[in-house]
Amino acid sequence: MLKAKLLLIGIIMPTLLIANEQTGQTTAEFHSIDSLWVLLCAILVFLMQAGFKTLETGLVKREHRAGVGAKNLMDMVAGLLGFFLLGYGFMFGSSHFGIIGFDLNLFAGTDLSKSELGIPGPVFFLFQVAFAGTALTIVSGAMSGRTGLLPYLIGSIITAILIYPVFGHWAWGNLLDQDNHAWLAEIGFMDFAGSTVVHTLGATVGLVGIILVGPRLGRFDMHGKILPIKASDYSYSVLGVILLWVGWWGFNGGSTLTFGNDVSTIILNTNVAGASACFSAFIMCYFFQRRDELMEKMMGGALTGLVAITACCNVVSPSSALIIGLLAGVIHNLSFDLILKVFKLDDPVGAIPVHGFGGIFGTLCVALFGKEELLVLPRWEQLLVQAIGIEVCIAFTVIVSFIMFKVIKMVYGLRVSPEQELGGMMAGRKMPKEFYEEEKGAKI
Amino acid sequence: MLKAKLLLIGIIMPTLLIANEQTGQTTAEFHSIDSLWVLLCAILVFLMQAGFKTLETGLVKREHRAGVGAKNLMDMVAGLLGFFLLGYGFMFGSSHFGIIGFDLNLFAGTDLSKSELGIPGPVFFLFQVAFAGTALTIVSGAMSGRTGLLPYLIGSIITAILIYPVFGHWAWGNLLDQDNHAWLAEIGFMDFAGSTVVHTLGATVGLVGIILVGPRLGRFDMHGKILPIKASDYSYSVLGVILLWVGWWGFNGGSTLTFGNDVSTIILNTNVAGASACFSAFIMCYFFQRRDELMEKMMGGALTGLVAITACCNVVSPSSALIIGLLAGVIHNLSFDLILKVFKLDDPVGAIPVHGFGGIFGTLCVALFGKEELLVLPRWEQLLVQAIGIEVCIAFTVIVSFIMFKVIKMVYGLRVSPEQELGGMMAGRKMPKEFYEEEKGAKI
Amino acid sequence: MLKAKLLLIGIIMPTLLIANEQTGQTTAEFHSIDSLWVLLCAILVFLMQAGFKTLETGLVKREHRAGVGAKNLMDMVAGLLGFFLLGYGFMFGSSHFGIIGFDLNLFAGTDLSKSELGIPGPVFFLFQVAFAGTALTIVSGAMSGRTGLLPYLIGSIITAILIYPVFGHWAWGNLLDQDNHAWLAEIGFMDFAGSTVVHTLGATVGLVGIILVGPRLGRFDMHGKILPIKASDYSYSVLGVILLWVGWWGFNGGSTLTFGNDVSTIILNTNVAGASACFSAFIMCYFFQRRDELMEKMMGGALTGLVAITACCNVVSPSSALIIGLLAGVIHNLSFDLILKVFKLDDPVGAIPVHGFGGIFGTLCVALFGKEELLVLPRWEQLLVQAIGIEVCIAFTVIVSFIMFKVIKMVYGLRVSPEQELGGMMAGRKMPKEFYEEEKGAKI
Repeated sequence: MLKAKLLLIGIIMPTLLIANEQTGQTTAEFHSIDSLWVLLCAILVFLMQAGFKTLETGLVKREHRAGVGAKNLMDMVAGLLGFFLLGYGFMFGSSHFGIIGFDLNLFAGTDLSKSELGIPGPVFFLFQVAFAGTALTIVSGAMSGRTGLLPYLIGSIITAILIYPVFGHWAWGNLLDQDNHAWLAEIGFMDFAGSTVVHTLGATVGLVGIILVGPRLGRFDMHGKILPIKASDYSYSVLGVILLWVGWWGFNGGSTLTFGNDVSTIILNTNVAGASACFSAFIMCYFFQRRDELMEKMMGGALTGLVAITACCNVVSPSSALIIGLLAGVIHNLSFDLILKVFKLDDPVGAIPVHGFGGIFGTLCVALFGKEELLVLPRWEQLLVQAIGIEVCIAFTVIVSFIMFKVIKMVYGLRVSPEQELGGMMAGRKMPKEFYEEEKGAKI
Repeated sequence: MLKAKLLLIGIIMPTLLIANEQTGQTTAEFHSIDSLWVLLCAILVFLMQAGFKTLETGLVKREHRAGVGAKNLMDMVAGLLGFFLLGYGFMFGSSHFGIIGFDLNLFAGTDLSKSELGIPGPVFFLFQVAFAGTALTIVSGAMSGRTGLLPYLIGSIITAILIYPVFGHWAWGNLLDQDNHAWLAEIGFMDFAGSTVVHTLGATVGLVGIILVGPRLGRFDMHGKILPIKASDYSYSVLGVILLWVGWWGFNGGSTLTFGNDVSTIILNTNVAGASACFSAFIMCYFFQRRDELMEKMMGGALTGLVAITACCNVVSPSSALIIGLLAGVIHNLSFDLILKVFKLDDPVGAIPVHGFGGIFGTLCVALFGKEELLVLPRWEQLLVQAIGIEVCIAFTVIVSFIMFKVIKMVYGLRVSPEQELGGMMAGRKMPKEFYEEEKGAKI
Repeated sequence: MLKAKLLLIGIIMPTLLIANEQTGQTTAEFHSIDSLWVLLCAILVFLMQAGFKTLETGLVKREHRAGVGAKNLMDMVAGLLGFFLLGYGFMFGSSHFGIIGFDLNLFAGTDLSKSELGIPGPVFFLFQVAFAGTALTIVSGAMSGRTGLLPYLIGSIITAILIYPVFGHWAWGNLLDQDNHAWLAEIGFMDFAGSTVVHTLGATVGLVGIILVGPRLGRFDMHGKILPIKASDYSYSVLGVILLWVGWWGFNGGSTLTFGNDVSTIILNTNVAGASACFSAFIMCYFFQRRDELMEKMMGGALTGLVAITACCNVVSPSSALIIGLLAGVIHNLSFDLILKVFKLDDPVGAIPVHGFGGIFGTLCVALFGKEELLVLPRWEQLLVQAIGIEVCIAFTVIVSFIMFKVIKMVYGLRVSPEQELGGMMAGRKMPKEFYEEEKGAKI
């Protein structure tokens, strides 16, 4: 009798425990730690908005500080609203012909609970919306100093609703719903945390914008010679670089969407690449280039390393990250000169070299430096597919953003008046100009 | 024999496991994740000090930058010390007549271990002290530019020890010790993360301070006409807005005091409200108001949305958050003009519209937009109780802070000399003024 | 038969559970929360780079802002690369004669997986590399305004590879591998989060640098009289103090390397000490010292309190932390005047008083204020050992950094040209100087 009782206890207790394990506490635990990590990373990526704002503000002319600040705030808002209302559903909803997602529940946060991930749907949304914001804000720096605030806002909203989500759907559309056909992912395109999806895409929108809006007054003389432009506060930009760098711990570290053992290695790679890129850009500029661009080269170099490692931080070793970084610094310095001195494009904060060239290079590094066993395809096929992904991104983005900016330009105009560009936000307003001497301000 | 042995194992092992489960590992786990989340949120709320400082610094005149910076540091210190020494015990100690708490263990951190929450007492203290600091720092901006540093410090300490904890006791006094009678909570007042407790209260102290200290020299002419005042650096203020926004993830997200599934929805609502408020404030100002206040309206609008959602982010849907935000932006723009242009009050950083009007509106939104099943009372009764809570807060705070500032004014004086106000911190000191041309500085 | 079956289940199930417990889920859980906490703290310590940059930028002259920003970025890079490539292995590798560690796996991140801690090796690396960066960046402020960028970079790399890791090995070398003999730890030296290992060491390198590079032009007149120097933006420095303060939550809170119950008390102590130090420094300066240094005293006081509590935050009570802070504020104000006015050393940002005097005081406080049962030795023996640790640190660091800077000075030169020092980064370059009027900039 006693024996039977004991036996019973021996059976029931573990059973209860198992039930407990699997349905309640521990399972919740398991998800909790992943959710907490991804949420922390979303916070860090969101903090990158502060980094971009600070970086760009310090690099533009004094009169354009307020304007670039306003643009940063506007694209954060546009990103949040546009992606919340429509973009998220287009990116992660059920795929239609592999071209675009569509899911009424995902529009306007109607019901975000569906998730095949180990984390709740709303957590995934917060992480993704922070990413969308990053792609948008790259544009603000590139077009700063002469673009109107309202046309910029319209462009941001369209990018958040359409450009970013559609390409994102092709590359990452199967993340939330594994039945989705994300055609780039399916042919083997690997872009871990978005060297292409976020950075190259953002830079491409910026590039098209730069071409359509034209250079700032006083950037080039009538013969196309570069005129010097003073940065308002380099040190402030360094703060931006550090904030961005901190944010990148989350940008790359959260992209696993779980808190596994690979997270710390990913973050290690990220830091090593950023540091070595800054180092090589510094050494190259100090000894072989014009030293009066040293600050731009150091800061841009560091960021290019961070952008480059973004696609491949989960498949390379720390020593490869070191080499990727060293190369990224050199690529930054060369492409910085190429854009400004050869192509005569006016990119006030160097967004194209950092996010464009850095993004392309990093996406290729997946195939070039990735550990063979972690690649989807054999190395050379992988390289080909990576190149295809980049080309698709650029081609698609150029076409759509060209149409977008062209229409805005025709309908409303992209550019502020010369008076406002030179005098700042308050020029031509009722308020006497001398009261805004300090902060001439935002382009509207 | 063997059978008996096996049986024994079958009994002992699960028993050990259960013991382990319930007293040790898993229970600790369960608390750990909540503790970690609340601690992370405390860090984010603490970071809001940086946000307030940056926001306010950019909006004040150049000569007052150092002064507002000093005030921000002082009220952080006053908040930490005052709340640590006495305020925490008054707010969360055993209730005396429902008016004030009192617990010797909670004074000066004597023994904070008591906690009926799922998180340790000291973690709860860190989260609450960061909240207290937020309420205090709202005042610094409102009174900046003409208030002396020492009187401001005294006012901050009294607010941290008395005003904030006493009203806080009425609304939240049952959080740590569920036997406490927090009378506002008991009649059904709902203020999730403090639209009233933190923001309206802080704004009310600031309002009383503004009235008693008077406007800055040069804000109005002798006929009461508004004179323009230049902001020192709008872009710097944008950094402040972003830092505050990031901090709000913790301000609202941590107020559950657990890391449950509602956290991500709360944060989602917070972001949606902030973004839509910024959007509506921008559109309203751009098309219907004076565009030279565009930066103030955009930034203040965003913050008003964040303040408004604070009371109700746990009971509304994301689409309601969108509407609350859109309305908050409009309310901000109207009340901004009301305070400055109708009431002729000199609130250099717009603290009253943001924290006062935003706080009141948000507290009412609990009843107006909350899901019926999540409200304590039927909707219209809830609205009444919300209104009572707001009125009690304002009445109590006006009375106590009026006495406080009046006494300080009589005994020591609230205001700096006109020479110091115009010339800055260093005016009338031994050091030759020209050495501080750049940073004329802090009011002392 | 049935009985046997049930019995079998009774045996197998708990066995499976145990296996599960110990190798899989729960164990992983247990580590996860610690890993997540330490990683979060590493992020916060990394954010302190932003704090140092901001603090220092605001305190230096306008012409030197870009230069100090560049130095901050460079030493972050030097710290990351130097510590990654060699320093980490020297500090935590297998001890050789107790003098230096050496482990090929720890160089260049070859294989960081080995860990006797509850957290993975790479997480520990990230936390430690952030610490190394903190020690380095203390130097940048002390030497700012007249030190060349390249010599500074070389000094930083050597500090990251050699000075910090070797002394760190003596004090903390047994953390990763408990078989290591860290001789200072073994005689009972206690320095919880690095008042000596990080702060005093960094300040000592800075002190030697200051002496060898000499004061800035215009700091003292020909008779040694102090000339006034204008700070570029005090309010910006306040942002730095707040960012550092937030970072300190991780600096001290993460040093347990687990997420136990002591974490919140440690953070509580940290905040109390910082606040009370700021308070006593303010009161002392306001009533008894020259008020034109009020900002320097307030900010430096706060930081001195944070530095002081760093060594002892895990062994003192909150009320002791209050006293330690109050004393730290006074010590700061006295040592600030001592360094500048008695020793006539030009420390532009007050790094020596904060990190040097604060570090020494805090290390002694372990013995003076620590709870007896938490000390390794009886109180007075503990005090003796603490003093020995400090002396060893200073003696070792003075010798090695003197040789280092002396060699750099002889081979390359430490100092920029007077033209560059007065005119800034761009002086004597091709670009016309007037274009950089705003941001004269970095010393190279």
